[in-house]
Amino acid sequence: MGSLKLDHPQEDNSNSSPMEMTSALDPVEFRRQGHMMVDFIADYYQNIDKYPVLSQVDPGYLRKRLPESAPDNPEPIETILQDVQEHIVPGLTHWQSPSFFAYFASNVSIAGFLGEMLSTGFNVVGFNWVSSPAATELESIVMDWLGNLLSLPKSFLFSGNGGGVIHGSTCEAIVCTMAASRDQMLSRIGGDNIGKLVVYGSDQTHSALQKASQIVGINPKNFRAIEATRSTTFALSPESLKLAISSDIEAGLVPLFLCATVGTTATTAVDPLGPLCDVAKHHGMWVHVDAAYAGSACICPEFRHFIDGIEGVDSFSFNAHKWFFTGLDCCCLWVKNPGALISSLSANPEFLRNKPTDSKQVVDYKDWQIALSRRFRAMKLWLVLRSYGVVNLRNFLRSHIKMAKLFEGLVAMDQRFEIVVPRNFSMVCFRVSPWVATINCKLLEAINASGRVFMTHAMVGGMYVIRCAVGVTQTEEKHIAMAWKVVQEHADVILKNHGDDGDANLKLALLDKIA
Amino acid sequence: MGSLKLDHPQEDNSNSSPMEMTSALDPVEFRRQGHMMVDFIADYYQNIDKYPVLSQVDPGYLRKRLPESAPDNPEPIETILQDVQEHIVPGLTHWQSPSFFAYFASNVSIAGFLGEMLSTGFNVVGFNWVSSPAATELESIVMDWLGNLLSLPKSFLFSGNGGGVIHGSTCEAIVCTMAASRDQMLSRIGGDNIGKLVVYGSDQTHSALQKASQIVGINPKNFRAIEATRSTTFALSPESLKLAISSDIEAGLVPLFLCATVGTTATTAVDPLGPLCDVAKHHGMWVHVDAAYAGSACICPEFRHFIDGIEGVDSFSFNAHKWFFTGLDCCCLWVKNPGALISSLSANPEFLRNKPTDSKQVVDYKDWQIALSRRFRAMKLWLVLRSYGVVNLRNFLRSHIKMAKLFEGLVAMDQRFEIVVPRNFSMVCFRVSPWVATINCKLLEAINASGRVFMTHAMVGGMYVIRCAVGVTQTEEKHIAMAWKVVQEHADVILKNHGDDGDANLKLALLDKIA
Repeated sequence: MGSLKLDHPQEDNSNSSPMEMTSALDPVEFRRQGHMMVDFIADYYQNIDKYPVLSQVDPGYLRKRLPESAPDNPEPIETILQDVQEHIVPGLTHWQSPSFFAYFASNVSIAGFLGEMLSTGFNVVGFNWVSSPAATELESIVMDWLGNLLSLPKSFLFSGNGGGVIHGSTCEAIVCTMAASRDQMLSRIGGDNIGKLVVYGSDQTHSALQKASQIVGINPKNFRAIEATRSTTFALSPESLKLAISSDIEAGLVPLFLCATVGTTATTAVDPLGPLCDVAKHHGMWVHVDAAYAGSACICPEFRHFIDGIEGVDSFSFNAHKWFFTGLDCCCLWVKNPGALISSLSANPEFLRNKPTDSKQVVDYKDWQIALSRRFRAMKLWLVLRSYGVVNLRNFLRSHIKMAKLFEGLVAMDQRFEIVVPRNFSMVCFRVSPWVATINCKLLEAINASGRVFMTHAMVGGMYVIRCAVGVTQTEEKHIAMAWKVVQEHADVILKNHGDDGDANLKLALLDKIA
Repeated sequence: MGSLKLDHPQEDNSNSSPMEMTSALDPVEFRRQGHMMVDFIADYYQNIDKYPVLSQVDPGYLRKRLPESAPDNPEPIETILQDVQEHIVPGLTHWQSPSFFAYFASNVSIAGFLGEMLSTGFNVVGFNWVSSPAATELESIVMDWLGNLLSLPKSFLFSGNGGGVIHGSTCEAIVCTMAASRDQMLSRIGGDNIGKLVVYGSDQTHSALQKASQIVGINPKNFRAIEATRSTTFALSPESLKLAISSDIEAGLVPLFLCATVGTTATTAVDPLGPLCDVAKHHGMWVHVDAAYAGSACICPEFRHFIDGIEGVDSFSFNAHKWFFTGLDCCCLWVKNPGALISSLSANPEFLRNKPTDSKQVVDYKDWQIALSRRFRAMKLWLVLRSYGVVNLRNFLRSHIKMAKLFEGLVAMDQRFEIVVPRNFSMVCFRVSPWVATINCKLLEAINASGRVFMTHAMVGGMYVIRCAVGVTQTEEKHIAMAWKVVQEHADVILKNHGDDGDANLKLALLDKIA
């Protein structure tokens, strides 16, 4: 690429003629550079399994490599792409690597990528209907499509006076629904009582709940993370919820909001929606369901039962950007009562006034979310649904689940290992004997330092477990087999060393176990 | 494109063999479809001034054209692109049209587009350092670069123990800084006193302030929108702020947060930062500066004075996605005390625990924002800065300002019109005589219905004004001349009709004027 630099001399400013601003979006140049970038990214995907999955750089690596200030003069795209390859790629943890099994995946697809390109290209700001009708209308339509695929009750769809909206993240979805529930409640009990409101989840609920609760002004003392134990496979027990609520009511507090989870982060546990709703609804609480990861699977009839009871809740969200091939960000939220959101989140300054809004015939999504500005995210969801079709999307999800099952089978055959909780979806929780954190942590660190796979851990019921979460688009069975081989190889070494330098480690392990 | 359909038969499911999931990111197919999409978008830019700027569709147009549910089987990209062209494009309001003068622009550029492609392609989720070191480090670096371009005091940069972060929107930036200020204050005055906290801005402040205040649990009764009048060209007067604060303190309330604006939405008014800080700091308040639109201009030395006094504030944000060529979304926020954000927004669940975080040597941006997940937005900012260089970026901004000046000159030459406030940046506020809302509103509606330009309005000091905001990448002087011609032509017609059917309209106008 070096020779191309001749066309873009880097002399000092006085010699270079200033660019015309319009050339910054010149279609001919857009085409040239756009094609170059498509090839760059295609090459990246082609070579992705050559990179260490977990980046191996040290903190501060990049500042040493980049200049201290922005350049005065333009640099050619060829130079920039060389820098991306040399300086950025080594600092990436490769979330699209077929050997990425950490956290939950955030998978991308050709259709998701193209949808993002269209949305970026149009770059419309669809805060209200009039600012770009197609952005609003397509979002309402695909959210109804997706709601139907999930067999959501009609009350969550636009056709049933509910409706769906695309947020950036689960935390945002919870902030908005919790603010709506807070304001509804305060209008009943008086605006000065915010300090009495209580929010509930299990201790397996995602940290987004606590963060949202903190953001909307719930007193941190009134946040309840109710213990979920191995006896319920880490699902929230309705009985425990009932007890917590009773005790709060006795203390003069007001139960506000329950977040139930379908597919917890640590173990993919599923809270029982129906029985939990029975308890919460008795106290007039708002119930939100966070199915960030597992929601996708519920488009398959055989997994739909995991959201049984959904008819009783107020809001439901899942992240299409996790396991539905859209890429970041795309959190799908449905609510039964959009009016509650709108009442808390609407602001109608004069500069946004327009006839369609005044006519009340249109949706203005600015009132369903935190930000005023919003990207045209529905585009990628529409492209994913159309490019693959429901039949393939279901099969994609099933294929991930089948691979997790394969991994589970491999673990089960090795008697040094234990599957810690039953597998619900495409994630396997396991640990190696001795069942102590030190050994399992050491094993995980060794696996990840190899660069061949990336997995992460969780602590549940005092157990340190390793999580193998399948969900990347390009993962195939051979990657599962390889991942298991990496785990076994490192376990061999660690257990051998553990045996060798015996006493000290053993004591540590025993202490760990007693604690 | 029709013939291509033959390769993608749409028969019923039983005949079509299921796709392999991995093909959803097959590099060969990625390349083919990616190139096709680059051409589609390049064509769109090439033809953009053939479309009506403001979409002319009616509410509900799209539901009539699309199927009721997602397809079972895959559809070829060629068909989808045809549908985009036929059904989506007519429903777009073309924000990238050179004749878009509404709201504030959200301009895109080749570099911004390519940066978004890279970020989408890598699709890393950079919630903490370890999850993708390059994403975090590049963000810290470009935020320091940009902070230096704005001559921000060192206390806002990482090198000075402050730091910058990229949010999605100004509202998000205000929610986070306000939550931080709230928690700092509550730790001083006791956690049960949230009901006493008061938030201040002028009545020209963006609605994001009120929304943020509502979200973080400030009692709606404690939100102050202090009147800013024509006498201060709609800037917030420090004297008025002082009065409002005194009266609140007398009532036993606690002043918390001031949002000052550099470049208001209605008229691009600039609040005087220094004097306002003097008042607010006397009461230990947090001062945030919202320079969403005008912040970009402050990289030009001749406009830097608009943020004089910035050394006294706690946080500062501007939207690179408005007037800095990145495309949506890219809100740059700097804070002096990241610890305050982190203390309010951090959640450290076990599944995110890792050695670099424990070592405290790294930035974990999840604790600087609402969401856990985050896109690699720094990439597009880096590409914009490098592809154009500081010299060109300044000239791009100056060229928009010069065009606004040109428009201003044209308006000033026509005695039927009035420039309502002095122009500060690239936006002109004007109205036509008779100075009544009915006439000016009718004029604006006629202009926009023509499809040839799109402008929006504001109400300030009882005046209905039309705003011509220049800021789209491809706008040239010829578009300015054309826009003015459209305004004049419609004014001719409306004023003539107004004269003709005289009495009724005249009375209406006079009534309006007296009111």
